[in-house]
Amino acid sequence: MERLRFAPDAAFIPRGDLLDGVTVAPLTARPGSGSPVQAAIFRLAANGRLRRHPATLPQILAVLEGSGRVSGSDGEFQPIGPGEAVFWLAGEEHETETDTGLTALILEADGLQPWRIGS
Amino acid sequence: MERLRFAPDAAFIPRGDLLDGVTVAPLTARPGSGSPVQAAIFRLAANGRLRRHPATLPQILAVLEGSGRVSGSDGEFQPIGPGEAVFWLAGEEHETETDTGLTALILEADGLQPWRIGS
Repeated sequence: MERLRFAPDAAFIPRGDLLDGVTVAPLTARPGSGSPVQAAIFRLAANGRLRRHPATLPQILAVLEGSGRVSGSDGEFQPIGPGEAVFWLAGEEHETETDTGLTALILEADGLQPWRIGS
Repeated sequence: MERLRFAPDAAFIPRGDLLDGVTVAPLTARPGSGSPVQAAIFRLAANGRLRRHPATLPQILAVLEGSGRVSGSDGEFQPIGPGEAVFWLAGEEHETETDTGLTALILEADGLQPWRIGS
């Protein structure tokens, strides 16, 4: 049993201009390490944003705390809050933003398939 | 963009005698569906337990809310709380229990590798 931490003080500010007011605490080894899935806790401060960009891989964003707005290929924002998640296809343009702050799990994996009731 | 839900009312009580006071809300499609990773939110009620059993695949348990105790192959319990996670190897005997309730993300995937600082 190996211990890991993803608390706010274990997070870092990622490089790149797609993210405003965002910290990331990874749960899994980085891309290219051979891990078949990338999982990380993203914390968006008030007015934080993951700017519009295409998903590299199929992706699930699951909101753990706070609330915000998400959009997919049609660019229309929909509200999202705790207990709610979205699935984006590989290559799908998408965006996430929040007025008051939001903590989300992001999962990315080649071949990732979301839960569907009855599936 | 497809919407998903993992709120408590979207969870179910899994079959089997390994789980006491546990509900599960899956984020990913079930094993055998072809999804390379299984991710689900496990909610343990007060005095809930995931009884000792071997991990089928490499596994990360990440505590989102509440607190409890976890053990691995040596059987010695260690306290765990929000922002903390553990990684168990495939085949490793492990156990999770809580006095006051606990919500955790569980990730399982063949080849899963945890984040290690500097990795």
